[in-house]
Amino acid sequence: MSDIASGDMGPWLSPEDLDLVRRKVPILYVDAIPARVDAHGDLEAVGLLLRATDEGTISRALVSGRVLLHETIREALERHLEKDLGPMALPRLPLSLHPFAVGEYFPTPGSPFHDPRQHAVSLAYVVPVAGDCRPSHDTLELTWLTAAEAQTPEILGDMIEGHATLLRQALAHLGRLR
Amino acid sequence: MSDIASGDMGPWLSPEDLDLVRRKVPILYVDAIPARVDAHGDLEAVGLLLRATDEGTISRALVSGRVLLHETIREALERHLEKDLGPMALPRLPLSLHPFAVGEYFPTPGSPFHDPRQHAVSLAYVVPVAGDCRPSHDTLELTWLTAAEAQTPEILGDMIEGHATLLRQALAHLGRLR
Amino acid sequence: MSDIASGDMGPWLSPEDLDLVRRKVPILYVDAIPARVDAHGDLEAVGLLLRATDEGTISRALVSGRVLLHETIREALERHLEKDLGPMALPRLPLSLHPFAVGEYFPTPGSPFHDPRQHAVSLAYVVPVAGDCRPSHDTLELTWLTAAEAQTPEILGDMIEGHATLLRQALAHLGRLR
Amino acid sequence: MSDIASGDMGPWLSPEDLDLVRRKVPILYVDAIPARVDAHGDLEAVGLLLRATDEGTISRALVSGRVLLHETIREALERHLEKDLGPMALPRLPLSLHPFAVGEYFPTPGSPFHDPRQHAVSLAYVVPVAGDCRPSHDTLELTWLTAAEAQTPEILGDMIEGHATLLRQALAHLGRLR
Repeated sequence: MSDIASGDMGPWLSPEDLDLVRRKVPILYVDAIPARVDAHGDLEAVGLLLRATDEGTISRALVSGRVLLHETIREALERHLEKDLGPMALPRLPLSLHPFAVGEYFPTPGSPFHDPRQHAVSLAYVVPVAGDCRPSHDTLELTWLTAAEAQTPEILGDMIEGHATLLRQALAHLGRLR
Repeated sequence: MSDIASGDMGPWLSPEDLDLVRRKVPILYVDAIPARVDAHGDLEAVGLLLRATDEGTISRALVSGRVLLHETIREALERHLEKDLGPMALPRLPLSLHPFAVGEYFPTPGSPFHDPRQHAVSLAYVVPVAGDCRPSHDTLELTWLTAAEAQTPEILGDMIEGHATLLRQALAHLGRLR
Repeated sequence: MSDIASGDMGPWLSPEDLDLVRRKVPILYVDAIPARVDAHGDLEAVGLLLRATDEGTISRALVSGRVLLHETIREALERHLEKDLGPMALPRLPLSLHPFAVGEYFPTPGSPFHDPRQHAVSLAYVVPVAGDCRPSHDTLELTWLTAAEAQTPEILGDMIEGHATLLRQALAHLGRLR
Repeated sequence: MSDIASGDMGPWLSPEDLDLVRRKVPILYVDAIPARVDAHGDLEAVGLLLRATDEGTISRALVSGRVLLHETIREALERHLEKDLGPMALPRLPLSLHPFAVGEYFPTPGSPFHDPRQHAVSLAYVVPVAGDCRPSHDTLELTWLTAAEAQTPEILGDMIEGHATLLRQALAHLGRLR
């Protein structure tokens, strides 16, 4: 998850509080898959975040982050999309906040959705973006891939297993599983 | 349903063929609720078609019509939205064609979803429209109503029961039931 | 929410830790509406928990409770159903854990889904139960109501607003809105 | 689709009427994937129909068939499940008739969902069965496969492409995509 990968859950909790909370309760997340759609509403491409790791390899990720105290799910989605895609992305948030999937990440080794730092539950959405995407972080790029390209082992292998699974679930939901 | 109310199922079937088919199989429809959304994706208003009947009363309806042979559900949605809202409505068709509800209309008296002419099964969608809506038929207007306004007995009472039910199901789906 | 109404979030967190966590992050819940279904899968009745309050009035509630650290959503649903309906209720948990609705409760006065103690996000499910329901708590009963009975102002008025809304959303989802 | 593979759409329409109707309108179907679930509601196995073809090869299929005039979707599901799994299968039909997918089959060569005889639209469901499955037709068997087994190229290759896709969409919907 992007804000975790950067070792930070935001300015709203001190690292000590965060550590405490993570040892007490599951943490609520939203995951979003940016999408380009054509004039008929058909999927053209999905957007994946690309990041160089300290080890010199690359990793790919969905837009993802925590829901803050007093924040609605809609606000959290909007905030994380803006954080990762920039202020001109013009995301079209869904009218209905029914997620296409609920991801459950556990710190336990061997979990299918594994997150070493925490137990997280994530509500996942596909979000069409109509504008210009400019990831703001230095190390970050956004890559647009067709549904077929996104499902190659090379691409899926650059993602954590939970994100790779959510991406394939999203494409299945849209009738675009290879 | 709009194209039925006008006594016509389109130029693609003769009246005789139509009568025959309706006596043999259920007929597939799409129903669409046009929606205005704000910049955050929240519902601002739903659009209902308004029509003066021959008896001098008015009736309200969803955008609705038959899926033609060789036509995809997406094409049928697009065609009926254009037919009823005009070519500048700019509907944003959903990425996923999972309906929020499946309506089943029966000709049998007393059916909750009653259609005197046929057994119809309808896939129902809420479709944001971003452009300028100009219903093309003489007798037709489009009225925008807030979720609260749309749920008054006066408005619901101007609709056939199936459409009134689908409208309330849509608002429930969007978390906007009064 | 039932375990909150009893002033307790379970033995797994001390009251001090709970207070701390609630001031830091949204708390994840599951809400379940027990259902009786006939042999064709049609809804016969929904089950509502009935409780005498200290003030001598009664309140009605859905089965509801927190998801614990390291607990799956499925396990949380199962635990809360057993806690409130007893060990012989034989709930048939859904194959898919897509909620029919996501409830967002805020402590802010005037929130449509209001919970004075916390910001909670709840995944809501309808769960058929095939067995014998015996609420274990002293003050608790389970009442079975038809879809029509459950939607009367008297019944809805005995519930907190969030639960009343989820119940109506569930009935809309099942095509049983009055 | 099973009743088509047997060259018959049921006794309710003469072959001549059927041919006529198929040349006029899309035909409405239901597709069902029988499932074994454990006591916690988790998927244990999916059931696929196995049939020897005239050419001496085998084919696998979902439970599938037409919705008849005046028949509800629920009744059609129940009838086709009983026809293919026998009267003791005890299917647990879903409370909600929201399909996990809508399949669109076209007679056009090259369609992703291809059906040489007709344009069909299918509402697809996963249906837990609790009883004893005894396919009634001579040539038919039911095979239970784990989610992993069902996704092997060997199994998927024995199905028409539309059914293979629906099966994978169902497993994605249940979080069980390989």
